[in-house]
Amino acid sequence: MEGHDPDLQLRKNDHLRINLEKDVQSELSNGLENYVFEHNALPELDFEDISLRSEFLGKVLGAPILISSMTGGTPEAGIINLRLAEVAQQYGLAMGVGSQRAALQHPESSDTFKVRRSAPDILLFANLGAIQLNYGYKVEDCRRAVEMIEADALILHLNPLQEALQPEGNTRFRGLLKKIEEVCQTIEVPVVVKEVGWGISAQVARRLVEVGVAAIDVAGAGGTSWSQVEMYRMQNQSRARVAALFRGWGIPTAHALEAVRKAVPELPLIASGGIRNGLEVAKCIALGASLVGMAGPFLRAAAKSSDEVGGLVEEILLALRITMFSVGAGTIPALRTIPLQRVVRS
Amino acid sequence: MEGHDPDLQLRKNDHLRINLEKDVQSELSNGLENYVFEHNALPELDFEDISLRSEFLGKVLGAPILISSMTGGTPEAGIINLRLAEVAQQYGLAMGVGSQRAALQHPESSDTFKVRRSAPDILLFANLGAIQLNYGYKVEDCRRAVEMIEADALILHLNPLQEALQPEGNTRFRGLLKKIEEVCQTIEVPVVVKEVGWGISAQVARRLVEVGVAAIDVAGAGGTSWSQVEMYRMQNQSRARVAALFRGWGIPTAHALEAVRKAVPELPLIASGGIRNGLEVAKCIALGASLVGMAGPFLRAAAKSSDEVGGLVEEILLALRITMFSVGAGTIPALRTIPLQRVVRS
Amino acid sequence: MEGHDPDLQLRKNDHLRINLEKDVQSELSNGLENYVFEHNALPELDFEDISLRSEFLGKVLGAPILISSMTGGTPEAGIINLRLAEVAQQYGLAMGVGSQRAALQHPESSDTFKVRRSAPDILLFANLGAIQLNYGYKVEDCRRAVEMIEADALILHLNPLQEALQPEGNTRFRGLLKKIEEVCQTIEVPVVVKEVGWGISAQVARRLVEVGVAAIDVAGAGGTSWSQVEMYRMQNQSRARVAALFRGWGIPTAHALEAVRKAVPELPLIASGGIRNGLEVAKCIALGASLVGMAGPFLRAAAKSSDEVGGLVEEILLALRITMFSVGAGTIPALRTIPLQRVVRS
Amino acid sequence: MEGHDPDLQLRKNDHLRINLEKDVQSELSNGLENYVFEHNALPELDFEDISLRSEFLGKVLGAPILISSMTGGTPEAGIINLRLAEVAQQYGLAMGVGSQRAALQHPESSDTFKVRRSAPDILLFANLGAIQLNYGYKVEDCRRAVEMIEADALILHLNPLQEALQPEGNTRFRGLLKKIEEVCQTIEVPVVVKEVGWGISAQVARRLVEVGVAAIDVAGAGGTSWSQVEMYRMQNQSRARVAALFRGWGIPTAHALEAVRKAVPELPLIASGGIRNGLEVAKCIALGASLVGMAGPFLRAAAKSSDEVGGLVEEILLALRITMFSVGAGTIPALRTIPLQRVVRS
Ligand SMILES: Cc1cc2nc3c(=O)[nH]c(=O)nc-3n(C[C@H](O)[C@H](O)[C@H](O)COP(=O)(O)O)c2cc1C
Ligand SMILES: Cc1cc2nc3c(=O)[nH]c(=O)nc-3n(C[C@H](O)[C@H](O)[C@H](O)COP(=O)(O)O)c2cc1C
Ligand SMILES: Cc1cc2nc3c(=O)[nH]c(=O)nc-3n(C[C@H](O)[C@H](O)[C@H](O)COP(=O)(O)O)c2cc1C
Ligand SMILES: Cc1cc2nc3c(=O)[nH]c(=O)nc-3n(C[C@H](O)[C@H](O)[C@H](O)COP(=O)(O)O)c2cc1C
Repeated sequence: MEGHDPDLQLRKNDHLRINLEKDVQSELSNGLENYVFEHNALPELDFEDISLRSEFLGKVLGAPILISSMTGGTPEAGIINLRLAEVAQQYGLAMGVGSQRAALQHPESSDTFKVRRSAPDILLFANLGAIQLNYGYKVEDCRRAVEMIEADALILHLNPLQEALQPEGNTRFRGLLKKIEEVCQTIEVPVVVKEVGWGISAQVARRLVEVGVAAIDVAGAGGTSWSQVEMYRMQNQSRARVAALFRGWGIPTAHALEAVRKAVPELPLIASGGIRNGLEVAKCIALGASLVGMAGPFLRAAAKSSDEVGGLVEEILLALRITMFSVGAGTIPALRTIPLQRVVRS
Repeated sequence: MEGHDPDLQLRKNDHLRINLEKDVQSELSNGLENYVFEHNALPELDFEDISLRSEFLGKVLGAPILISSMTGGTPEAGIINLRLAEVAQQYGLAMGVGSQRAALQHPESSDTFKVRRSAPDILLFANLGAIQLNYGYKVEDCRRAVEMIEADALILHLNPLQEALQPEGNTRFRGLLKKIEEVCQTIEVPVVVKEVGWGISAQVARRLVEVGVAAIDVAGAGGTSWSQVEMYRMQNQSRARVAALFRGWGIPTAHALEAVRKAVPELPLIASGGIRNGLEVAKCIALGASLVGMAGPFLRAAAKSSDEVGGLVEEILLALRITMFSVGAGTIPALRTIPLQRVVRS
Repeated sequence: MEGHDPDLQLRKNDHLRINLEKDVQSELSNGLENYVFEHNALPELDFEDISLRSEFLGKVLGAPILISSMTGGTPEAGIINLRLAEVAQQYGLAMGVGSQRAALQHPESSDTFKVRRSAPDILLFANLGAIQLNYGYKVEDCRRAVEMIEADALILHLNPLQEALQPEGNTRFRGLLKKIEEVCQTIEVPVVVKEVGWGISAQVARRLVEVGVAAIDVAGAGGTSWSQVEMYRMQNQSRARVAALFRGWGIPTAHALEAVRKAVPELPLIASGGIRNGLEVAKCIALGASLVGMAGPFLRAAAKSSDEVGGLVEEILLALRITMFSVGAGTIPALRTIPLQRVVRS
Repeated sequence: MEGHDPDLQLRKNDHLRINLEKDVQSELSNGLENYVFEHNALPELDFEDISLRSEFLGKVLGAPILISSMTGGTPEAGIINLRLAEVAQQYGLAMGVGSQRAALQHPESSDTFKVRRSAPDILLFANLGAIQLNYGYKVEDCRRAVEMIEADALILHLNPLQEALQPEGNTRFRGLLKKIEEVCQTIEVPVVVKEVGWGISAQVARRLVEVGVAAIDVAGAGGTSWSQVEMYRMQNQSRARVAALFRGWGIPTAHALEAVRKAVPELPLIASGGIRNGLEVAKCIALGASLVGMAGPFLRAAAKSSDEVGGLVEEILLALRITMFSVGAGTIPALRTIPLQRVVRS
């Protein structure tokens, strides 16, 4: 297979380490500070009755939270995936594993992705870089990724800027949409397409809907910045400066979400990119997301322990509930109808 | 009674201490900096003729100032209430006592609320958390609160977010509006409803007017932040972080005032939340308030002495008079007609 | 005379000292940073031909610059006035002396105002507080002030906020407009009305034009703040805090100028208040002023020497000329037609 | 010749030194931060196919980059010109030499401008101050400048503000447009007119097009500020303060580019002034420039070595390519059609 990449595992390790040790946050904010809820002093609601029950792609969730696609392929990654999966199962969250390309190339590493045993009931996403479809991967490989982890759905991620910043990147994006279409038409599970932190625009969303994707994760700017991650990997100073230029690149999550929501009003949407607490989760839902993803915060918690992950989830859910109470929304569908006001902050 | 709470007194003591020792100001401003008066170089007015005389709920005031509901229930609180009452009487200000729930449960503490002897003539407000009506309190209990202090009117405060942040909070708000209606229809004194620092919205104001409240105190964001106060009380780090998220929550006082003014044009309004000087008092009146409340600043003065409270009042009234002079308004009703310009500050 | 004030001289000395030693600048900017000239890369103009020649109230000026009314009444003040007058004569600038109330009360101090000998040709303004007309001064007193210094015109200043901040202030402003009208109708010289740093509004300008003033100096906010000056004089901490509240009070010079220009399109206008260099002088003229005044900078220069004042004037005129060159305006009337663009600065 | 200036060489040396050693950046930004590209997650493009090939004034370029007019006339300047020329030849960039007035007056210094031998194929611009046409220079002198360096075109620069700031400046700009017209009508090569960092306005652009210029370089504010450079040269403190006033003068490059693009839609435009990387180059092209110039960064690189210049070019071109990839533009003409969004930054 053309896309074979001997250094893949090494690179993945670098990525984890840099994400844990360096400041890789985007220069942009996620844009949610521009939206405020109106306080409701008379919620007419009992706090204990608030329900976070959600649905996504036909599966019921305990809360509309996604542990975003991150890792797999090395022993450390395997441990992280297990810790995340345990907690996802406990709270009924959705979860994605990191790109499974490593496991397709080195089947001996596939165990580090297999979290089904620990999370029999969750909504679980397989993950591959869409660009691999232009480097020899076929629908059959996607199917293998899904089956490997008994996933409910497949996520294909788009990351042109990250690939362009890597000297070794896979940057032949021509004709990719057609390949995505083929996967959508052929594979047995729903296909979700996402970015990795620079956002899906309205125009890209429309093209994706036309070829049959089941959902989109806008994965906007404001959180983990992959140009920063790549910058820290670079030996070459000049290339590092070029990477640094893109720290402010991308569509902030809130803006991507609003634009895509309007462009494809019927499609289920995931919001991710810089979401950091339950109050922001609530804003994303009010802006039209059905599921809200976080990566960086879960990685940092999982690097410590499952308990840490559980504590993080509790904290997010508590803040989400309190926000819902304070705006008078007793259920996730009710929260989706609460208006947000746009403010201009100085 | 279901709402009985043995730790109430302890909690109230914590609240006072934290308010006096910590920075509990909201992250938001009260919004008044966005409104400016136009200087009038030719006021056609004699400074000595400026009158602060006001009326509220049929009672005459020496100045349109309210010492907002704060305390009672402990010996320290009793001293503070007396100092505030003396000065209110001296200047003809309105005053509210803090929540009387403690005194209804522990009648032996009711003396700490009884300020009538020191303030025979002032407009005096009783105070209870509206939520107690959902935890067993009846109109009769409200009546007892009013009678206990020979109040002219009853304030019911709404504080859903504060209750939700307290692990021990009373958070069953469903059906509360109906209970408020019952009080309004039955009790002999006017009923005022207020928030405690996150603001009454236009929509909530409309619902309150429908059930018969006599006035609303918007009690907006920009001053004392109860999520911060609760944060300082928390042992649990995770809960404290959740509380901290809400430091920027709420409707800034100026915005709440403008919105409510427009929504219920006939209702007498009190503005409070982060008001700190006589120039801001003047702005609130020009934005439509009939009475302007302050809590934090009066607490800090009263913790020292009555003289300190008197000095604070003198300072507020002087700044209010000078502002009125500088815009050419000789009376409070005249001030209410002075236009404010909205500016966008960077 | 009712307004007799034994401490006047003392106060005037305090004022000078505070202006020279403390930071008395307004919290507001003069607003001119919101207006920008468009650079003209092809001025079609010879720099050496640029003419600053102006006219005001029928008198020809070497440049449209006014040394604003400041001082007189003490020996130090007399020296400052002489230094300013010498330079005004040399460059053909206009000049005002400070309030002559002191000299009307203590004729022995009138020499400190008499600058005609040093400045035989300049446009010279007498100065009195308009409010004195409500404290016993008559047209005859105004005439004495004009004659005392052989002035070409009389400036009456309005300073209600300053008077209100002074415990000893003259604050009976009722009926003042009528008295100003009487002066305008009776006295032989043109009458100019000005503020002292909080600005004349459109509404006040219209009333002044109706009673016959010959010109207005908007004297807006953004420069010397008299509430700050008074604050530094105060013993009483509470009064000082009240004064400090007004550091952000007033109509910024640029906004006052624009509003008054529009309200009274025919009236000659002076702009002053926080003007600090020749580029700002040019902006004021493009916004509609015929003459541009500065006080603080001239005071600081004159406290040193005439040479210092001369250097300041040279610097202002050079910057004014270079600005005119860079926008392609060869004369002051041409500069008045150059459009300014309004920008929003963050 | 009237404009003869014995200190010209000395001044030019000062200029280079100050540019290399001092902070001479404008107080303004180039305005490009107000324009953002929308990220395209699905570029449908192979990175390796991206082409930077451009055309300007009929000549093909390897990339739409101009090494802006800077220097010549001294041995150091000669070395800098050679280093720049070598790299321009290697990458197919356009290049301008600095003002050739020195070489016309001192023909023995003309070798320091002659870069054709090192750069046989590049688009090369001769350079003269347009103002010299008002001080005795004729079309024949322009022709000599072009022939001296075998240039493809002549740049005439407009710098009224710089001349006005120099005590020794040439400031007789009257009648200059007519002289420019004569050059345009007579000389055999295309004539480009530019500013030096304060920008060409829409109105000036229209006048220049009427007299026959072949292209305009807007040379806006946001980069090298010549008022700052002149400030550092000044002995006289007062003059230095006047120069400092103009650090915020001029039309930011992005705004000049947008305005001129609209005013003269057919004319080929060069954007320069504060452009610092390939992402900004891309923005200028999307805003309508055909060629993008940089001066300061090239000077600092060339003062070190050709390799440094080569590295800078590589870095700019890489960032330009990555930007093009991330917006889905495979060619420079395609990039020109990509919309930019205007944002308001706080
Ligand atoms: C350590 C790490 C690894 C990631 N790996 C993948 C990946 O393999 N596949 C993918 O689709 N997204 C990957 N992402 C991107 C996230 O799924 C998501 O789009 C985005 O980072 C969420 O933003 P946040 O980290 O700001 O919450 C990764 C993110 C992180 C932090
Ligand atoms: C120490 C303290 C205690 C308070 N207790 C009560 C209370 O018992 N009942 C109530 O309605 N509001 C209470 N409040 C809220 C105020 O009455 C008011 O709504 C608001 O705090 C005014 O804002 P300020 O402190 O920024 O002036 C309290 C405020 C403070 C500072
Ligand atoms: C020291 C000082 C004394 C002043 N005295 C007078 C005065 O007697 N009469 C008057 O009309 N304005 C007086 N002014 C106000 C100025 O004339 C003018 O309105 C304003 O201060 C100009 O602002 P600037 O100092 O920011 O340039 C005085 C200003 C200063 C700084
Ligand atoms: C050291 C230096 C010398 C310059 N000399 C000239 C010149 O002789 N002729 C000219 O047209 N522009 C000259 N410029 C201006 C540039 O060509 C250009 O207009 C502008 O500086 C580009 O801005 P930047 O330095 O911010 O990239 C010079 C710029 C610099 C930095």
